Amino acid sequence: MNQIDSMERLVNEFSKLPSVGKKTAQRYAYFLLTMSENEVKDFAGAMIEAKEKIHYCKVCANFTDKEVCDICSKVKREPIICVVKEPKDVSALEKVREFNGSYHVLHGVINPLEGKGPNDINIRSLLSRVQTEGTEEVIVATNPDVEGEATAMYIANILKPLGVKVSRIAQGIAMGSELEYTDAVTLSKAISSRREM
Amino acid sequence: MNQIDSMERLVNEFSKLPSVGKKTAQRYAYFLLTMSENEVKDFAGAMIEAKEKIHYCKVCANFTDKEVCDICSKVKREPIICVVKEPKDVSALEKVREFNGSYHVLHGVINPLEGKGPNDINIRSLLSRVQTEGTEEVIVATNPDVEGEATAMYIANILKPLGVKVSRIAQGIAMGSELEYTDAVTLSKAISSRREM
Repeated sequence: MNQIDSMERLVNEFSKLPSVGKKTAQRYAYFLLTMSENEVKDFAGAMIEAKEKIHYCKVCANFTDKEVCDICSKVKREPIICVVKEPKDVSALEKVREFNGSYHVLHGVINPLEGKGPNDINIRSLLSRVQTEGTEEVIVATNPDVEGEATAMYIANILKPLGVKVSRIAQGIAMGSELEYTDAVTLSKAISSRREM
Repeated sequence: MNQIDSMERLVNEFSKLPSVGKKTAQRYAYFLLTMSENEVKDFAGAMIEAKEKIHYCKVCANFTDKEVCDICSKVKREPIICVVKEPKDVSALEKVREFNGSYHVLHGVINPLEGKGPNDINIRSLLSRVQTEGTEEVIVATNPDVEGEATAMYIANILKPLGVKVSRIAQGIAMGSELEYTDAVTLSKAISSRREM
């Protein structure tokens, strides 16, 4: 099979997808060949269309096909901005329906090992948003790992002088999980962040 | 996010791939949006090109971009035909380098529950190949499940009257596995098919 150039090219493209190794890519490629020519054209067309139409919202930098995304254009959102690392974090949070403010997508976190500093992610526009939108609170919802924490710290430091409340999503043991199987770092965080009942 | 039509369409296309659920499809779609426009066009182009160029070999029905595939056009192959369910089985067997004959791809197996009879898979051309190619042996390498066994039985029954040797790939416990964790059916097959040492 591998002698077929166009097959190899297709496998190669599929293996660029996240967590897709050569075997899975081959499986996808074989599957694609069982689809009809029109179905393949639809698939390819959907890819090109999505890439052409979808860009960053000019307010929050989430993906959108409009100038300003649906969430930012809603009038009745609370004056709270939730800062996340990636667009998929927005859809995760929107699904929960717990939060009714707007978002700000950083498209990355500060990561000195990868040479990513504060200017390489979408922080500057957050400052101007806070200054012009009358924001009351900024919730930093980056992941609870080293880079996410460092980024949260950095954002808190530059926002606090503006007089806005900056908060961090709670860290502790996950709902439904068991103490026995919770890792030590999470457990110690859960104890140090305990709340009075 | 899900309000964006072109995004939804893309996620929908990705979720057609085998074993890809909505979450994985979304992950692929998000990843695609981080690729450059040219990269996305290359990806889409590879899909269309593969579908256009690749078709069935007119001898063995494996995928090829030529009239007769590389394996079938090799002169020095032994006069043995290995019958498999799908094209990916051919590449699995070719990787092993144990077999030096040619292949015959059925593109399915007999499956009464899905209404698939012998005429719905590529069996008829196997008969004419055996009669014209001077085949000495046909190895039936369909999967060792109910449908694969039934198909193997059917093929053996129609080929034996032609005087060709028909064999079945060996079934038993897998190399490197442990008796303790081998399922009962495999174990009983391994005992009934035991060989003298």
